[in-house]
Amino acid sequence: MSAQASRFLDVRALTDTLSARLSAEDQTPQSMTDASPAKWHRAHVTWFFEEFILRNVDSYRVYDDTFRYLFNSYYEAVGARHPRPERGLVTRPGVADVGLYREYVDSAMVDALERGLLDDDALGLLELGCNHEQQHQELLLMDIKHLFSTHAFDPVYVDRDIDEPGEPGPLTWRSVAGGVTEVGMTQGSAGFSYDNEGPRHRVFLEDFEIAERAVTNAEWLEFIADDGYHRPELWLSDGWAHISQTGWEAPEYWRFIDGEWTTFTLSGRRRPVSDEPVVHISFYEADAYARWAGARLPTEFEWEAAAATGDRTHGQLLDVARCHPGRAGSTMIGDVWEWTASAYLPYPGFVPANGAVGEYNGKFMCDQHVLRGASAVTPPGHERITYRNFFPAPARWAFSGLRLAR
Amino acid sequence: MSAQASRFLDVRALTDTLSARLSAEDQTPQSMTDASPAKWHRAHVTWFFEEFILRNVDSYRVYDDTFRYLFNSYYEAVGARHPRPERGLVTRPGVADVGLYREYVDSAMVDALERGLLDDDALGLLELGCNHEQQHQELLLMDIKHLFSTHAFDPVYVDRDIDEPGEPGPLTWRSVAGGVTEVGMTQGSAGFSYDNEGPRHRVFLEDFEIAERAVTNAEWLEFIADDGYHRPELWLSDGWAHISQTGWEAPEYWRFIDGEWTTFTLSGRRRPVSDEPVVHISFYEADAYARWAGARLPTEFEWEAAAATGDRTHGQLLDVARCHPGRAGSTMIGDVWEWTASAYLPYPGFVPANGAVGEYNGKFMCDQHVLRGASAVTPPGHERITYRNFFPAPARWAFSGLRLAR
Amino acid sequence: MSAQASRFLDVRALTDTLSARLSAEDQTPQSMTDASPAKWHRAHVTWFFEEFILRNVDSYRVYDDTFRYLFNSYYEAVGARHPRPERGLVTRPGVADVGLYREYVDSAMVDALERGLLDDDALGLLELGCNHEQQHQELLLMDIKHLFSTHAFDPVYVDRDIDEPGEPGPLTWRSVAGGVTEVGMTQGSAGFSYDNEGPRHRVFLEDFEIAERAVTNAEWLEFIADDGYHRPELWLSDGWAHISQTGWEAPEYWRFIDGEWTTFTLSGRRRPVSDEPVVHISFYEADAYARWAGARLPTEFEWEAAAATGDRTHGQLLDVARCHPGRAGSTMIGDVWEWTASAYLPYPGFVPANGAVGEYNGKFMCDQHVLRGASAVTPPGHERITYRNFFPAPARWAFSGLRLAR
Amino acid sequence: MSAQASRFLDVRALTDTLSARLSAEDQTPQSMTDASPAKWHRAHVTWFFEEFILRNVDSYRVYDDTFRYLFNSYYEAVGARHPRPERGLVTRPGVADVGLYREYVDSAMVDALERGLLDDDALGLLELGCNHEQQHQELLLMDIKHLFSTHAFDPVYVDRDIDEPGEPGPLTWRSVAGGVTEVGMTQGSAGFSYDNEGPRHRVFLEDFEIAERAVTNAEWLEFIADDGYHRPELWLSDGWAHISQTGWEAPEYWRFIDGEWTTFTLSGRRRPVSDEPVVHISFYEADAYARWAGARLPTEFEWEAAAATGDRTHGQLLDVARCHPGRAGSTMIGDVWEWTASAYLPYPGFVPANGAVGEYNGKFMCDQHVLRGASAVTPPGHERITYRNFFPAPARWAFSGLRLAR
Repeated sequence: MSAQASRFLDVRALTDTLSARLSAEDQTPQSMTDASPAKWHRAHVTWFFEEFILRNVDSYRVYDDTFRYLFNSYYEAVGARHPRPERGLVTRPGVADVGLYREYVDSAMVDALERGLLDDDALGLLELGCNHEQQHQELLLMDIKHLFSTHAFDPVYVDRDIDEPGEPGPLTWRSVAGGVTEVGMTQGSAGFSYDNEGPRHRVFLEDFEIAERAVTNAEWLEFIADDGYHRPELWLSDGWAHISQTGWEAPEYWRFIDGEWTTFTLSGRRRPVSDEPVVHISFYEADAYARWAGARLPTEFEWEAAAATGDRTHGQLLDVARCHPGRAGSTMIGDVWEWTASAYLPYPGFVPANGAVGEYNGKFMCDQHVLRGASAVTPPGHERITYRNFFPAPARWAFSGLRLAR
Repeated sequence: MSAQASRFLDVRALTDTLSARLSAEDQTPQSMTDASPAKWHRAHVTWFFEEFILRNVDSYRVYDDTFRYLFNSYYEAVGARHPRPERGLVTRPGVADVGLYREYVDSAMVDALERGLLDDDALGLLELGCNHEQQHQELLLMDIKHLFSTHAFDPVYVDRDIDEPGEPGPLTWRSVAGGVTEVGMTQGSAGFSYDNEGPRHRVFLEDFEIAERAVTNAEWLEFIADDGYHRPELWLSDGWAHISQTGWEAPEYWRFIDGEWTTFTLSGRRRPVSDEPVVHISFYEADAYARWAGARLPTEFEWEAAAATGDRTHGQLLDVARCHPGRAGSTMIGDVWEWTASAYLPYPGFVPANGAVGEYNGKFMCDQHVLRGASAVTPPGHERITYRNFFPAPARWAFSGLRLAR
Repeated sequence: MSAQASRFLDVRALTDTLSARLSAEDQTPQSMTDASPAKWHRAHVTWFFEEFILRNVDSYRVYDDTFRYLFNSYYEAVGARHPRPERGLVTRPGVADVGLYREYVDSAMVDALERGLLDDDALGLLELGCNHEQQHQELLLMDIKHLFSTHAFDPVYVDRDIDEPGEPGPLTWRSVAGGVTEVGMTQGSAGFSYDNEGPRHRVFLEDFEIAERAVTNAEWLEFIADDGYHRPELWLSDGWAHISQTGWEAPEYWRFIDGEWTTFTLSGRRRPVSDEPVVHISFYEADAYARWAGARLPTEFEWEAAAATGDRTHGQLLDVARCHPGRAGSTMIGDVWEWTASAYLPYPGFVPANGAVGEYNGKFMCDQHVLRGASAVTPPGHERITYRNFFPAPARWAFSGLRLAR
Repeated sequence: MSAQASRFLDVRALTDTLSARLSAEDQTPQSMTDASPAKWHRAHVTWFFEEFILRNVDSYRVYDDTFRYLFNSYYEAVGARHPRPERGLVTRPGVADVGLYREYVDSAMVDALERGLLDDDALGLLELGCNHEQQHQELLLMDIKHLFSTHAFDPVYVDRDIDEPGEPGPLTWRSVAGGVTEVGMTQGSAGFSYDNEGPRHRVFLEDFEIAERAVTNAEWLEFIADDGYHRPELWLSDGWAHISQTGWEAPEYWRFIDGEWTTFTLSGRRRPVSDEPVVHISFYEADAYARWAGARLPTEFEWEAAAATGDRTHGQLLDVARCHPGRAGSTMIGDVWEWTASAYLPYPGFVPANGAVGEYNGKFMCDQHVLRGASAVTPPGHERITYRNFFPAPARWAFSGLRLAR
C-alpha cells in the first residue's frame, strides 16, 4: 500500500478509535450550537473526501445523495445544507450507517490512490482532508467533553488514575530579540500548512520576554482568591459585561463543591492539579489574568518568534488513554492552546484556495482571536509552530490556556 | 395473573411496541422544549410507578438513585430534576439500560401486586400510572412526529398505503337543548378519571347547534384559498401577532411543494386527504376558521353535553399500523382532539390529589385551552367524554383539529 | 351648551389636568412596550374622536394626515400604524402641537354637536370615545407611574402627606346564595357599557362566601414572611416559572431598603400602609396568596353577584390630589382592581360592534384574566359592577389587588 | 480671558448650537442601546469636567449629587451608574435643567482657569475633556440622525438645498512604498492625542497602492445592481449571517421607494448623490465591496502611511449648515470615516492613563474595527491622521465609508 494510502487510513482509524467508546446515544446530540454530534463529525469528514475528491473520480458512485445536504458544514459554494443548530436532530443515518459510509469511502479512496486516479490537486486535497479530519478529532473530543459536562452525573470517557499534584516552581522568563522577523509559512514550501498560515512575511517586533511555561491551576486559584473575577479594572469592557451576565467565577467545567474547586475532565470530575496548565478559559479571562499578573498576552508573532527559538520538543498531545493536559513544561507546543493578543486577520498577500475549500479559513477572519501551540487533544503530527487556531473571545470549550509575555 | 397485573402489563407492552420501531438514535434527541426524547418517555413513565408506588414497598430496592433526578418531569415536591430543555442531552442511561429498568420495575410491580402488597391508595396510583403511561404513549408519537418532521428527508415511522380521498358531503348540524346541565365526573364514582374532570357539577347552557363532523382538509384548503391566513379581522389579536411573526400559511407539517400542499405524516410526506379532519392546528387557527365560517367553537360544556347525547361510538383511536386520523365521521371521540372555546380552569370545588401527584393537573390551569375528544394516537380505552386535554393557544404538535358550533 | 358637549369637555379637561403636571420630557418616553407616552395618550384619544366621528362630518378638515398613522393604536381596519414598541421615539409632534390638536378637535366636536350634525351612531361613538378617554386617563397614570419608577431618584407626580397606618381588623366573610343568576349588561339597555359586558345572560353558581374587604399590605407582608415567594406548592406552574426567572420577592414597585419594605407611589417612595389594599400584583401572585390563605379567587360571576347584593358605595376612585388607594373597606368598587379566577372570554351571544370599533374588546379574548371593581386611578363615573377589565397573568403595572372567596 | 478658557468656551458653545435646533422632546429618547439622548450627551460631557477636574478644586460645590449616577457613561472606577439601555427614560433633569447645569460648570471652569487653580494634570484633563466633548458632538449628530430616521415622516434637522449630482471620474491609485515605518503618536509629544494613538512605534509594511478617493454612491449602486448583497462568496461568514438575518439590501438609511433608492439625511430623505462617498455602511459591507472590486481594505498602518505622504488638506468636516459629506475628493481626512482591515488593538507599549480616565479607550480593545480619517460631523480641529476611531463590525450609524487598497 502506498504511503499516502497508509497515512490516510491511519488518520481515519484514529477517528474510529475515538468514537468506539461512544454509544449510539452518545454520538447523537448536539449540546450547543458551536458543538456537533460525534456521529456528524464522523460523517462530515468522510463527506469532505467524497465531495472534494471522489466526486471528480469518474468511476465513483456517490454513497447517498442526501449526505451532501446533511453533512456539508458551511461551504456555501456546495449548496444548501442542514441548519447547524439542528445537527443533533438528524437521527438518520444512524451510527451503524455512518460506519458503513466511512468504509465505503475508505475503500474508494484507497482504490483511487492505488490506481493512480488522483492528480496533484486531488492529492493536495487528500492532505487537506487528512488535516481536516485531525482537526475534527480534536473537535469531537471537545464536543463530547462539553456534552458529558451537561450530564448531572459526570460520565467518564476514558478511565484514568488521579494525577498527583506537583509543584510548578517559580515562573521564569526568556528574552527574545525583536527587529524585522519572518513569520508564517508559504503553502507548499515545506510540508502541509493551511492557507491562513501564509504567505510567510516580515513583521517588526520590539524586544520582549516570554514566560517559560503556561499559567497553572495553582496560579489561577490565586487569581480567584484575589477576587480576580470581581474587579472591573482587570477586564476588557466586553469581558466584564460577559462575566456579569454569565456569572462566571472560574474556568469552564469548574464547580465549587463542598468547599473546594473541582473540574470536569474526560475521566470524570476531579480536583484541578496544581502544576497542570489552567484550561478551558476564554480570551477575556486570559486577558484579565495577564493584566492582574502585571503582564500581557504575547502577539501571535511574538509567540511564533519565541517558539522558533525555544524548546522544540512538545508537551502532551493526544493520547487516547489520557485526553488531558500534562504538567506545565518549557515547550510551547502541546497541553493547551494559548490565547494570544492577536486578532485573527489575513496575512499580507493572503489568497484563499480556489473553489469551495477556499471557504475553509478566510471567511472567518473577523472578531476571532488567535491561539497558538496545540493541546492534549490535538493529534500528534497535526501540531505546527505556524498553526493559527482561532475562536471568539467568549469561547471556553476548546482546551485553551495562556502564557504570559511582557 | 390478576386482572390488575394483566392490565398493567398490557399498557406497558404498548409502549414497547411503539418504541421498537425507533433506533437508539431516534430515541435520544429532543426536537423542541415541549417535546421529550422517546427514551425519556419510556424511563419517566417507569419512574412514575417506582416513585409513587414501589418506594413505599418495604422490600423494594431502587434501581438507580440518579433516575429520580433524571426522570422526574415536573414534580416540585419530589425534588430537584434535570432541566426540561436539556432532556435530549442525557445520553446515559442508553436505550438498552432503559429497557432493563423497565423490566426491573415491571417485575417488581407484578410481584407486589401478586403478593398483595399494594393498599387501596397504591392501587389508585397504579391506575393513575397506567393512564399516565397511556398519555405518554400519545406524547411519544406526537414527539416523534415532530422530531422526524425536522429531518429534510421525511423519515417513515410506519409504512402505510396512500388513502384514497373521499367526499365528506355537506356539513350538517345537530340542535342541543340548553338549561342547567351536569358536566364532569367525580373521581371514584365510575371508573377512572383525572382529578381535573371533577367534581361533577351544574352549568347553565343556552340552546346551541353543533356540527355533525369535524372540519376537513378540503374545507381548510378553502379557508387558505380565501386568504384566511391574511385577513386580520378573522383573528384574535394574539393569533394575528403570532402568524405575523411565524409566517404560518397552513397547519403544522404542511408544506407547499411543486404547486400543491403536502403534509408530513408518520408514514412520510403526503397530500392531505380531503375528507379527513384537518389536524395540527393551533387554537388561534381553530378560532379564526370558525369566525371565517360564520360559526364559533363550542365551549367544553357544550361539547360534553353534545357528546353525551350523540353518537357514542368512536372514530380512529391509536392503531399502531396507522397512527393517523381516519375519515371525518359523526362520532365526537377519536381522529383529532377538538379545540373548544374554554380556558382550562378548575371546576367548582376542585381539589387536587394529595401529595406530589396533586401536581399532575391543577398547577397548569392558566392560559391553556381545553380540547375534547381523543385522537388517532390516543390509546384505546384512554378516551372519555369528560376528558379535558389542554394546550397553550399556539401549540400545534398535538393531533388537534376542530368542530364548529353556533 | 348641550349636556353632551358639556360631558365631552369635562372628560377632555381631566386629561389636560393630569398631563399639566408633566414636562415635555416626561410626556415623551415609553418605559416598556405595554406602556405608552403621556403625549401619545393625549393624541390617541383625540384621534379616536377624529377618526370615528369627525371624518364622517362633511365640513370637517383633518388636522394632520400623518396622525392616522402615528396615533392609531391597534385598529387593523383603519390601516398601517406606527409600531407599538416605538411610540417613545416619536418626538414630533411635540407636546405643544398635541395641545393644539386637542383644541382643534374639541372645537370641531362641540361645533358638530351644537349644530346637530351627529346622528345616533355618532352619538353612540361619542359616548364610547368619552369612556375610551377615561380608560386612557387611567392608563396614563399607570404608565407615568411605571416610567417614574425606573428613575433612580423617585420623581414625585403629586405631593401628598404620609398616610398614618391603621389597623384593618380581622377578615370577615359574607355568604352569597348560588343558583341560576343573571350577569352582564346588554348594550343600550341602561346607560353605557362596553360590548364585552354583554349580553346579559344566565350562569349557574354554587353557594359561596366572599371576603368583606381586599387583602391588605399587612397581610401581604405576612405572606412574604411565611416564605410565600419561595414555596412552589403555592404557585401555578407558569407563576413559579415566572418568579424563578424574574426573581420577584414582592409586588411591583416594592424594594427592600435598610431593613424594610418600601413601595414607589405617585407621591414618591414610602412604606406600604398596613390597612391599604396591596396593589400592583400579578394574577400569579393573587392566585398564590389565595392558596396560601386557604381560600381562592372568586370567579367574575361570583364577584358580580356579590357586588350586586353588597355595599353599593365605592372606595377611592381617581382624586387628582391623591392617585393612590384608600384604606381597605367593605365596598367592592374602587381602591384596587381585583383579579378574578375567570379567563377573559366572550359571553354567550357576544357580537362585537360594527366597523373598526369592533376591534375594541373582542380580539383580546385570549389568555387574559378578568379583573373587577375599579381603582384609585379610575375616573369617577367610569366604574360599573359589570365592568370587565383584563390583563395578562404577569401584568403588574395596573392598580391590581385581590379579594378572597371560598 | 485666557486662550484655554476661550478654547473651552468655544467647544462648549458648539454643543449648544447643535442642540438649539432640538426640542425638549427631540432631546429625550434613546433610539437604540448604542445611541444616547441629546440631553444626556449635553449633561454627560459637562459631568466629565465636573467629575475629573472640578471635584478636585477645593472651592467647588457639586451641582447635584445624583448626576454622578445619571451621567457617568461607563467609568467603573467612579461607581454605580444608570443602566445604559435606559438613558431615554430619565426625563428629569429636563432640558432646561441641563442647560443650567452647563452654565454652572462653565462658570466654575472659567473661574478655576482664570484663578490658576488647575495644575498640569488638570489642564491635561481639560484638553481631554474638550476633545471628549467634540467626540460627543459627533455622537449627538449620529444619534439624532438615527432617532429621526425611525420617524415615519422624515424630520429635518437642518434645511439645505439639494446637491446636484456630479461625475466622480475613474478611480485612480497611488503607490506607497513599504518597509519599516513609524506610526502613531506618543502622548504629549506634539499637541493632543488620545492614549490609544501611542506610543509611536515601528511596523513593517509591504509596498501597496491606495485609492485616490473613497468609494462613491454611484459605485455602491453598481455593487447592489451586481447582486452584491446576495452572493455569499463576497462576504465574511459573520457578515453573511448578519445580512441573512437582518435582510440588509443597502446601506443604513437607504430605502427603495417608487423605483429608486433614497437615503435619509439630516436634511430629510433624498436621492444618494452619485459622486458623494457612500456612507453608513458596516465593516461587513466595506469588506464585501472591496472583495467584489478585486481589492481589499487598507490596514490602519497602510492608511496612516498613505495619509502621511498624501494630500494634507481635508474634505468636509462638521459644518452646522450641512451635516453631510461633500463630494469624494483626494484628501483622506473628512467626509466619511474609512473602515480599515485592522482590529482595534493596543500598540506595543500602550499604557492607559492613570485613574478613571484610563477607562477611556483601552478597555474597548476587543472585537472592534479601526476607522481612520474623519467625517462630515467631526468638529474641525478634532481630526488627526493618527486618530483611531473604532466600532463593532455591524455598526452603521456612524458616518462610515471606505477606501480601497491593493
